[in-house]
Amino acid sequence: MVGQKYMSMLCDHPYFEISTVTGNKSVGKTYFEAVQWIDQIPLSDKYVDLEIKSTEPKSVDADFVFSTLPTDVAKKVEPAFANAGFPVISEASAYRMSDNIPLLIPEVNPDHIGLIKKQNTSGYIVTCPNCVVAGLAVVLKPLYEKLQITKVIINTMQALSGAGLLGVPSVKIIDNVIPYIKNEEEKIELESQKILGQYANGNIKNANINFSATCTRVPTLDGHMENLHFESTLEMSPSIVEKTLLDFHPVPQQLKLPTAPLDPIIIRNENDRPQPRLDRLAGSVAGMSITVGRIRQGINSKSICLTLLTHNTIRGAAGNSILTAELLYKKGFLKGN
Amino acid sequence: MVGQKYMSMLCDHPYFEISTVTGNKSVGKTYFEAVQWIDQIPLSDKYVDLEIKSTEPKSVDADFVFSTLPTDVAKKVEPAFANAGFPVISEASAYRMSDNIPLLIPEVNPDHIGLIKKQNTSGYIVTCPNCVVAGLAVVLKPLYEKLQITKVIINTMQALSGAGLLGVPSVKIIDNVIPYIKNEEEKIELESQKILGQYANGNIKNANINFSATCTRVPTLDGHMENLHFESTLEMSPSIVEKTLLDFHPVPQQLKLPTAPLDPIIIRNENDRPQPRLDRLAGSVAGMSITVGRIRQGINSKSICLTLLTHNTIRGAAGNSILTAELLYKKGFLKGN
Amino acid sequence: MVGQKYMSMLCDHPYFEISTVTGNKSVGKTYFEAVQWIDQIPLSDKYVDLEIKSTEPKSVDADFVFSTLPTDVAKKVEPAFANAGFPVISEASAYRMSDNIPLLIPEVNPDHIGLIKKQNTSGYIVTCPNCVVAGLAVVLKPLYEKLQITKVIINTMQALSGAGLLGVPSVKIIDNVIPYIKNEEEKIELESQKILGQYANGNIKNANINFSATCTRVPTLDGHMENLHFESTLEMSPSIVEKTLLDFHPVPQQLKLPTAPLDPIIIRNENDRPQPRLDRLAGSVAGMSITVGRIRQGINSKSICLTLLTHNTIRGAAGNSILTAELLYKKGFLKGN
Amino acid sequence: MVGQKYMSMLCDHPYFEISTVTGNKSVGKTYFEAVQWIDQIPLSDKYVDLEIKSTEPKSVDADFVFSTLPTDVAKKVEPAFANAGFPVISEASAYRMSDNIPLLIPEVNPDHIGLIKKQNTSGYIVTCPNCVVAGLAVVLKPLYEKLQITKVIINTMQALSGAGLLGVPSVKIIDNVIPYIKNEEEKIELESQKILGQYANGNIKNANINFSATCTRVPTLDGHMENLHFESTLEMSPSIVEKTLLDFHPVPQQLKLPTAPLDPIIIRNENDRPQPRLDRLAGSVAGMSITVGRIRQGINSKSICLTLLTHNTIRGAAGNSILTAELLYKKGFLKGN
Repeated sequence: MVGQKYMSMLCDHPYFEISTVTGNKSVGKTYFEAVQWIDQIPLSDKYVDLEIKSTEPKSVDADFVFSTLPTDVAKKVEPAFANAGFPVISEASAYRMSDNIPLLIPEVNPDHIGLIKKQNTSGYIVTCPNCVVAGLAVVLKPLYEKLQITKVIINTMQALSGAGLLGVPSVKIIDNVIPYIKNEEEKIELESQKILGQYANGNIKNANINFSATCTRVPTLDGHMENLHFESTLEMSPSIVEKTLLDFHPVPQQLKLPTAPLDPIIIRNENDRPQPRLDRLAGSVAGMSITVGRIRQGINSKSICLTLLTHNTIRGAAGNSILTAELLYKKGFLKGN
Repeated sequence: MVGQKYMSMLCDHPYFEISTVTGNKSVGKTYFEAVQWIDQIPLSDKYVDLEIKSTEPKSVDADFVFSTLPTDVAKKVEPAFANAGFPVISEASAYRMSDNIPLLIPEVNPDHIGLIKKQNTSGYIVTCPNCVVAGLAVVLKPLYEKLQITKVIINTMQALSGAGLLGVPSVKIIDNVIPYIKNEEEKIELESQKILGQYANGNIKNANINFSATCTRVPTLDGHMENLHFESTLEMSPSIVEKTLLDFHPVPQQLKLPTAPLDPIIIRNENDRPQPRLDRLAGSVAGMSITVGRIRQGINSKSICLTLLTHNTIRGAAGNSILTAELLYKKGFLKGN
Repeated sequence: MVGQKYMSMLCDHPYFEISTVTGNKSVGKTYFEAVQWIDQIPLSDKYVDLEIKSTEPKSVDADFVFSTLPTDVAKKVEPAFANAGFPVISEASAYRMSDNIPLLIPEVNPDHIGLIKKQNTSGYIVTCPNCVVAGLAVVLKPLYEKLQITKVIINTMQALSGAGLLGVPSVKIIDNVIPYIKNEEEKIELESQKILGQYANGNIKNANINFSATCTRVPTLDGHMENLHFESTLEMSPSIVEKTLLDFHPVPQQLKLPTAPLDPIIIRNENDRPQPRLDRLAGSVAGMSITVGRIRQGINSKSICLTLLTHNTIRGAAGNSILTAELLYKKGFLKGN
Repeated sequence: MVGQKYMSMLCDHPYFEISTVTGNKSVGKTYFEAVQWIDQIPLSDKYVDLEIKSTEPKSVDADFVFSTLPTDVAKKVEPAFANAGFPVISEASAYRMSDNIPLLIPEVNPDHIGLIKKQNTSGYIVTCPNCVVAGLAVVLKPLYEKLQITKVIINTMQALSGAGLLGVPSVKIIDNVIPYIKNEEEKIELESQKILGQYANGNIKNANINFSATCTRVPTLDGHMENLHFESTLEMSPSIVEKTLLDFHPVPQQLKLPTAPLDPIIIRNENDRPQPRLDRLAGSVAGMSITVGRIRQGINSKSICLTLLTHNTIRGAAGNSILTAELLYKKGFLKGN
């Protein structure tokens, strides 16, 4: 699912173009033969005849690589590429929590790029977070900085594409909700604390926020919805929260990176928004803005509720990786066109 | 939707039988002609030819009435029936919060029946709660009494049948979630506080629990799922919460009322339960037990998360009303067979 | 649903722009207030403040009108507009079968425009067909002309948007199929015979094809799928059918009308296409091409099966009307920019 | 999916009880550990601790075996069991078309049991048809015998459970229809012709009916819907078709077999029935009756349209196999309690 988004999003990219696609059982086939294309945007003709190569450094002719490998495969393959001189931008969870590897959302912690220097390889690895965190941390960043929030209770209603093509069989989810996604709740806490953490002297000091997450799978195709209830040590009103989110103007927007939407966060004032089907493609770069709605007082005057929506395979995966590549390129860490 | 559940659940009832069905535009038709039957249990032959009567006391030949009227209609019609001598068991929200009218869940607050004495009519009105509260309050009752919980953050994923036959158009909800249900969040707080409140000297003192609710509509047919995060002034472990719920043995089960399930609360230990489609019909009386799962520590040692599932048109509506009627009958407030 | 498609498709149109929107209960509101916008393409800012006018000639300042009125309303209102001098392009079924009113698909029967001369009003009415016929007749046109087909058995699986915003309640269609759509099967036969009929001397001689239609509603949002089994008096092979469809190059494509897709018919050779979600937006003008697949021998050597897919609110409604307006404009029957 | 139906349907069976369950990767586990139970009827306690055995004759202690093996496995394993003395009642397609193996629907061709004599093994194999044919052939049997139908055009809308637990990923089918099911269309023709064929002198003469089938997958959980258009050499009216179906009183109903529903075919006269969700559990044995509706004239006076609905994992699989076992038992081909 995510691979198909890369193909669409990089089809006419100003900095990068796809030179090689690798695979496993499909090596030697064309991309058209290998893929079960299910994106509503049709496969571009320019990729139809790309030959699938094996996933090893010597097969790849590229300035850097995007990795969407399964965790266990990534664990071995990504260091092999880094050792062979490739910058690796990875969505795998294998190295997200490593001390010397940045876990990046360009809007949130671009300075964490500094960790790359601590890697003793000719190439390097940077990672991108879990698809829930990719939206969550963007919203929490200004709230944490300006309003000193300390506790976040999060309930997610996650889309099917987040589990991959074969992840959720139809007979399990139609007319149903599954209140469990393996390892997801732990990742939300750990990854958010690292991403929102402070970088200094080559180290990251985790953010001081506690999380309690409940993750559910619902029968939507794309778009993770997240209901937050967060508390601060200070009084907070819905209007100050709204203002804080609207005032957020981070690095990718300042740099006008091609995949950065004009508004990283869009606020809807209707009482029944955001909705996955109506808001998942929000933003000047479709699917890259996070939509926030239902901002209201929480259980007391120091707590607030809100609902946010992130396109999980765009903002939560391919889009965040491409935006990361653009940031690295602008900062001189990557070659491009 | 709810009316159809009454027809099925009362079809072979040991105390009661349906003598009259009333309607509005369909007066004079047979029940078969008037109804758009969509329950998977087929309409019983014994109701096919029932003639629809007008909704006024003089048309009704019965010992008591169940009311599933819309709020604004209930506001006028229910007192008319009470004045004409009928006990009225109502699911409408019109009088739920009235000082002299009990809001009943037989497992939770059977003693609130005492409020009936304060009504100066030859008949009387008792009410049943909102479909979310009908499950929620059963779970909170033992937790509030034994573990002194003080704060509840609740996120619901509610089924379509809760909105009635025409409530949610298909084009709005397929591949979607709607993060808003009108008036629902307020009702959860107010009704729970009344139901869990203490009855003494003809008055109810509201329970001292704060709530923050976020209600969403998801594309399931039946079964409201509720994710709770609750806090106490005391330390709480998942095992003490589990034990507290399992030890709950309230009045309807003690009285062996026909619609009372053997277990008011069923606990599932699999990590992906409860699920609406698999658990909504749980219980020795199908759909009357509440299924609880995923009991685990919350954001700190004084907080717990859990997920519960209630069949919204059975436990959350028709079943709770019928159980209420059974309780009233056993206590001498109603005539039956 | 269809109204919202007009707003999107006419937003940057080279010939036409929307001057007035009319309504009934919403007169005086802005379009933003009046509409329940549910299209994934957001409402354009330029329409937000349009004031809704009443549906009568004197309220309308326009060179011509599109009508998406309900049949019974259209019956009175459309002649009133025609009498007041307006050309009316209508999707209502009220006048589709009238002798002096063309039922138009620009790719199929542009010459039927001639019927307009028979209307004795200062304006005139032209109509567009049912959303199933809008795709069906485009495919049948070359087959009827070149291969002399005489019998068509059609089974449809129609999308929810075809029934309008409130047409199909979600509790009726999730995990279900409804094997009946009121009046639909009759319309398919009658409208197809008129559209495929021959225009001569101011009259239409119906096409000599018999139909048997079975129409079902399935839980898809957009995109009507139609399985055809058709017979000829001649032998037919799948390849000759494919060639006949690909060779079809009708008037709107010859005139390069702005809403005419480069290919009126797209053929997919994969064995599992067309699919509603993957193919409904096919075409150089999204949603205006009809996708055909699974062309194969039928029950004998003179019969063929195929599956076609039409976007019901674009090609089957708004798009066909706009294309009709473009044809009328090019032929001098309408004023434009 | 089908295995779970066997467990439920045999739980309190008057003739048979389950002694052994076999598996492959799960050998040694308990049934509870091995199964991903997703049936709404909960797993019976009596099976929870059954140990999974390997699929070979020496591991099985039983009077006969039901086989739901994949085709390629069945090809080897079923003859091994037959050679070891077991009667095998199989749902696999491996041997359905073999000359000396009956393909049985007890209502349709009980006399085909005679083919067993032609098998030179101490045990034997009988097979059950494809899940579409299991309903189709019951309806066609009286029509073929009494009305001499010669051509059948069939369009199916098949449920997800027909493809097994992992058969259809949710991301492929939500908001979609897939117009292709591998090998299904061929099976419908071949299997129907054999089942409806005449048995004489140890041979089957195929029925003289031509078929053209189009099979689609729709997002329903259970219940295959089939739209038929059939032709005869004779004139046929809807009423004669209805009468012919209602008069059908085959062997299992005459023998009052425990899994035979009182009515093999139920006719609904509402214009929007049968519907999968409302009718799939029809019958005095839930899910064993076939519901027929929308009987009406077809494309000419010698053709008729109708819609039928079959529960694919009950009537189309487990139920038909169990009914076959009951027939074999009554006829002395099986031992039981």
